[in-house]
Amino acid sequence: MSSAWSLHPQLAQDTIDIGDLPLSRVLVIKDANYPWLLLVPRRADAMDITDLDEVEQAQLMTETTRVARALKDICNPDKLNIAALGNMVPQLHMHIIARRKTDAAWPRPVWGVVPALAHDPEEVKNFIAALRRKIWLDK
Amino acid sequence: MSSAWSLHPQLAQDTIDIGDLPLSRVLVIKDANYPWLLLVPRRADAMDITDLDEVEQAQLMTETTRVARALKDICNPDKLNIAALGNMVPQLHMHIIARRKTDAAWPRPVWGVVPALAHDPEEVKNFIAALRRKIWLDK
Repeated sequence: MSSAWSLHPQLAQDTIDIGDLPLSRVLVIKDANYPWLLLVPRRADAMDITDLDEVEQAQLMTETTRVARALKDICNPDKLNIAALGNMVPQLHMHIIARRKTDAAWPRPVWGVVPALAHDPEEVKNFIAALRRKIWLDK
Repeated sequence: MSSAWSLHPQLAQDTIDIGDLPLSRVLVIKDANYPWLLLVPRRADAMDITDLDEVEQAQLMTETTRVARALKDICNPDKLNIAALGNMVPQLHMHIIARRKTDAAWPRPVWGVVPALAHDPEEVKNFIAALRRKIWLDK
């Protein structure tokens, strides 16, 4: 079913892989401006949510809210932004972003507003460790 | 449960009400630049998807994909954009937008790129009639 799936090279380049949920790969975007995750369903040729079957759509919602809750618990944001756009990279991917009223793009959507900012290695390591605990173990 | 819910005044001003699904109100954004719908779950105080319970989250995904399929069938877009942002209007609302590679904002997200364009009254009437048939009767 997912035999032919592989992560789009652009997404691979822009992210850190933090592990797989039953349907989706969980990735952190390499941009310290915002706590910003992606979920990529491991389904070959899926471009829009409507390309998933109903079971997969429900699973994507379950995984999205699970990851969103983890992000919310860790970052205590003012707002979550959740979006499947894919105008630049066609492979279906769900953005889950913790927004703060003090962040670089607020109140605009984050895409294309300011250049990506490199993470502090220690900070991103701690962020990923906290996410892993929340997403995989703190069910 | 939803007794205290009412549509946010800004959303009411910017949209045409086309009817209710079991969870959400379906609205057309008054902007002829893009075929652009909103789903607003009729749940008081819901701001993020994580504020819905699991049954409501699943229902929102069902309604989102149903409306997205209808929009896809009618408009035959190059891409769907689906997003819950809410940085400006806090009431939880899901954008479902049919994007074309020739549209005013492509490949950027639509928010804030060009001013809203008034609909041709006849065209929007036909669009809404087609949507109603697809969403409510063509199950």
